[in-house]
Amino acid sequence: MSILSHNSDDDDKEPVVPKAVISRLSLYLRELQHLIRDDQQTISSSKLGRVLGFTAAQVRKDFAYFGQFGYPGIGYKCEELISQIKKILGTDRVWPVVLVGCGNMGQALLGYRGFEKQGFHVVAAVDVDQKVIGKQFHGLTVAHIDTLSTIVAEQNVSVAILAVPAKAAPEAAQLILNSGINGILNFAPVTLNVPKNVSTVEVDLAMELEQLAFSVYQNQNQDQ
Amino acid sequence: MSILSHNSDDDDKEPVVPKAVISRLSLYLRELQHLIRDDQQTISSSKLGRVLGFTAAQVRKDFAYFGQFGYPGIGYKCEELISQIKKILGTDRVWPVVLVGCGNMGQALLGYRGFEKQGFHVVAAVDVDQKVIGKQFHGLTVAHIDTLSTIVAEQNVSVAILAVPAKAAPEAAQLILNSGINGILNFAPVTLNVPKNVSTVEVDLAMELEQLAFSVYQNQNQDQ
Repeated sequence: MSILSHNSDDDDKEPVVPKAVISRLSLYLRELQHLIRDDQQTISSSKLGRVLGFTAAQVRKDFAYFGQFGYPGIGYKCEELISQIKKILGTDRVWPVVLVGCGNMGQALLGYRGFEKQGFHVVAAVDVDQKVIGKQFHGLTVAHIDTLSTIVAEQNVSVAILAVPAKAAPEAAQLILNSGINGILNFAPVTLNVPKNVSTVEVDLAMELEQLAFSVYQNQNQDQ
Repeated sequence: MSILSHNSDDDDKEPVVPKAVISRLSLYLRELQHLIRDDQQTISSSKLGRVLGFTAAQVRKDFAYFGQFGYPGIGYKCEELISQIKKILGTDRVWPVVLVGCGNMGQALLGYRGFEKQGFHVVAAVDVDQKVIGKQFHGLTVAHIDTLSTIVAEQNVSVAILAVPAKAAPEAAQLILNSGINGILNFAPVTLNVPKNVSTVEVDLAMELEQLAFSVYQNQNQDQ
């Protein structure tokens, strides 16, 4: 797991809700959304756990942090549990998002349909590069980064996706913070220094490959 | 943290090395690589921890799983610790990687320079779409997915990056497994069912935004 909220818990202090639980809420949510798509209205904790590789006890313990959501003899009602999880995560409303950086990765992210589906609406895309400013990708026209503060104020944005090269990341992050945004999903492979009230989630794709490599490597060694 | 190796530990069984430790190794590695770039040869556990938001005790405990790497009065020698971490992760050698799916996301990943830097070499890219087959992106010509087994055998590939739409993911994953690959970095927002000896790391970008949203949401509520 290569993602850390730097202003959040670490292993030394016991937080009210462990970060790992919050991350499992996202997994449960995805699975419940698949079930609804397949016309399944209810699911037991053991079945929900099984498909994700957790025990029933783990599933029940995770939800117990937030309340009592199951029904005896029925299990969880999928639609209802989806609403509850979204409420917990804060994604029961639409989050306007700004994309900062419209290179290869930024353009791919603009085409990524998973964001909208989960309530994240990319309302604007900005860059410093005159070669992409004014161009349209997936219905959005790239604006100059100088307009960021105006966009943030007008559209009430609190979250940015940072998809610039590592070198440009610190300066771009500063511009994002100056604009009043307090959450950054960071695709640049660099750790951002942000004030305590700002949340960052770092997405380092090579880091995730490393985690995979370790796991494959372990399996290979076990086979020998 | 939206990433889980499905054949790995969960909270119910205590693994030899917790998965969170492995993920922190990646973070330490990145930081040490930055330090070397800035011509810093040594670092203390407290300094290394501080920049990543961990305590010195956490840093020392993490490395203690694998041996004794620090020097009294000096701290860690950056180059040496980088080698040690890479050895632990299995990234002290080059991993040939195949990209499956060359749409927006696949093309962005081909342009992502972070992979190569960490020892992952994308040796081939495959797709089913005649519109991209034969096209060249970042020096690689897209091949038909039917050639996957040959590529895997010839180039000794054990890891694939799956960047196809959710709908196409299960079938593509099956083709990947048939080709003899046993590690998948999955960008499709869908949980793959894989045999026990296969490792998967799921990258659901919306899930990471959800984790960020939760954190921002919590901060906003605290401010009120």
